[in-house]
Amino acid sequence: MPASPTLNRQVVLKSRPLGIPQAEHFEIRSAPVPELRDGEVLVRNQFLSVDPAMRGWVNAAANYSEPVGIGEVMRAFSAGRVVASRNPRYPEGSLVMGLLGWQDYAVTDGKAIRRQVLETDLPLSLSLGVLGLNGITAYFALNACGEPKAGETVVVSTAAGAVGSVVGQLARHQGCRAVGIAGGEDKTRLCVEAFGYDAALDYQAPGLEQALSEACPGGVDVYFDNTAGRISDAVHPLINRHARIVICGTASVSSWDPWPQGPRIERHLLNKAARMQGFLVWDYEHRYEEALAALAPLVREGKLRYREEILDGIEAAPGSIADLYQGKNMGKRLIRLEDA
Amino acid sequence: MPASPTLNRQVVLKSRPLGIPQAEHFEIRSAPVPELRDGEVLVRNQFLSVDPAMRGWVNAAANYSEPVGIGEVMRAFSAGRVVASRNPRYPEGSLVMGLLGWQDYAVTDGKAIRRQVLETDLPLSLSLGVLGLNGITAYFALNACGEPKAGETVVVSTAAGAVGSVVGQLARHQGCRAVGIAGGEDKTRLCVEAFGYDAALDYQAPGLEQALSEACPGGVDVYFDNTAGRISDAVHPLINRHARIVICGTASVSSWDPWPQGPRIERHLLNKAARMQGFLVWDYEHRYEEALAALAPLVREGKLRYREEILDGIEAAPGSIADLYQGKNMGKRLIRLEDA
Repeated sequence: MPASPTLNRQVVLKSRPLGIPQAEHFEIRSAPVPELRDGEVLVRNQFLSVDPAMRGWVNAAANYSEPVGIGEVMRAFSAGRVVASRNPRYPEGSLVMGLLGWQDYAVTDGKAIRRQVLETDLPLSLSLGVLGLNGITAYFALNACGEPKAGETVVVSTAAGAVGSVVGQLARHQGCRAVGIAGGEDKTRLCVEAFGYDAALDYQAPGLEQALSEACPGGVDVYFDNTAGRISDAVHPLINRHARIVICGTASVSSWDPWPQGPRIERHLLNKAARMQGFLVWDYEHRYEEALAALAPLVREGKLRYREEILDGIEAAPGSIADLYQGKNMGKRLIRLEDA
Repeated sequence: MPASPTLNRQVVLKSRPLGIPQAEHFEIRSAPVPELRDGEVLVRNQFLSVDPAMRGWVNAAANYSEPVGIGEVMRAFSAGRVVASRNPRYPEGSLVMGLLGWQDYAVTDGKAIRRQVLETDLPLSLSLGVLGLNGITAYFALNACGEPKAGETVVVSTAAGAVGSVVGQLARHQGCRAVGIAGGEDKTRLCVEAFGYDAALDYQAPGLEQALSEACPGGVDVYFDNTAGRISDAVHPLINRHARIVICGTASVSSWDPWPQGPRIERHLLNKAARMQGFLVWDYEHRYEEALAALAPLVREGKLRYREEILDGIEAAPGSIADLYQGKNMGKRLIRLEDA
């Protein structure tokens, strides 16, 4: 069913999940598209992003951002075209990406826009993935926090994912050995065949510790940690002196209430004078274009590969987060809106 | 009983402890003082150091240094005077500090010497404490890893200890709020009255979490962690955005076999884009004099206070480590040798 040109379909938070958000925690409503005030723009969203961070956004616990309120439009990154503008910075026809929500239309005074999309020769969907916050996150998490040096071993969890796959490829381009960890044979094959990892390990198979030791005979210098949990527990004992662990996500932890226990990390960090650092991409907002200047040419030259998994229609949005945590997706997950 | 001038009393490791080394794991033997070869010096030790790190040195598990062998002289920092020299770098009469062992006399080609003690106007014992690796550790752990800024809150565990007390005082000198955590009322009083902490909390009293919240109303920017365990578990939830946690020791963990569990740290680090870093003072060996140039004037001016707890006679050495882990010492623990 095509969207009415005057109605804005919105996915709103209906109830607050304790753990991973499911379809039942959302509902779709229709609201009128508001009139623009001075300084505002109207964006017609073309792609909605589905991200693991959304779990944190809807949980009530204090987090790195305020939780989405019940009855509010689900916070989400979206990309679309400015279809009406009373803001000279974003003229009609511009392509933009930002926190425009899971909805057909977004009105913003510009604050929600994270970036004007300048790579108009490339698909707009990339601005939500490899040339969006996923790629930007990978670039700064690896380079600014991981600080890899040629010849080092970089281990990547969620190695086939939207961020991890970029981390692995960038590490390889910088002369590192890249070892990926992913769930299931399909994903580990993708790691090696599509993303060029030197080795890829299936965490669902028995013997992860042993497999890791064998895949990292010289130990681990950089660990891109997007999972926490038992995958990280297997990596930590292998870290080298002055290793750098970059915490980008905690996908393997289904709930932080009650707070999960695990092996204490302090001794590993002390014995190796190693570093573990949480990474939030917002800290690098003033440097996004630096990342894109590095990433976009690699995409154009075919040296930075990506996978997308596109679901059609806003109706797919409510149930689209839970799958991410079951490891079902095989690429950056997006919702494509009809008639956009 | 004074040491024989021709015999060298040595504390050797008799058996390997699983956890904290006790008196029974050592024995004292007498050996002849060897003849010097070319390039060697003979040091008459005056003070032997007792350090929490010794637990790690005698445990068999892989660590940041090779374990002391059974029957070998106990590895230890000592300070003394060169009484015979065939090495022009350390002439007779020089004062030196280094890994000279728990023994009356040490022979070395100079490699065991960490530093020639140049502050001859100050007691030699300080070269094992506030002007030794304790002070140097505090200086670099705080400044190079903790990176405190004026107005920030610095929390210090083992706050009354040889390293912690220096961290707290340096933090105050740099305009920070310093909150100490120590065991028992005597130590918390020492923290405030002798070392100038803004607040000091007794981890043995109930309600540490609540007391910490109240003592750190603006959260925690730097955590000097010398304990791990439940003290750290109480600090971690209070860290601020971009907090720095410096892991200097794990005094509250009595054994790492079996490996202890605790609340997972990843979420705290991620939510706050915070950093947790293991600190080994050896990484700063080329910069020791920089620390001493900052610390020695503060000692001379009475602005950097310290406590020593001096035990007399080498017979006190074997049982001197265990007490540290029971929180019994009230200052830097040293063994003073007779006739030295």
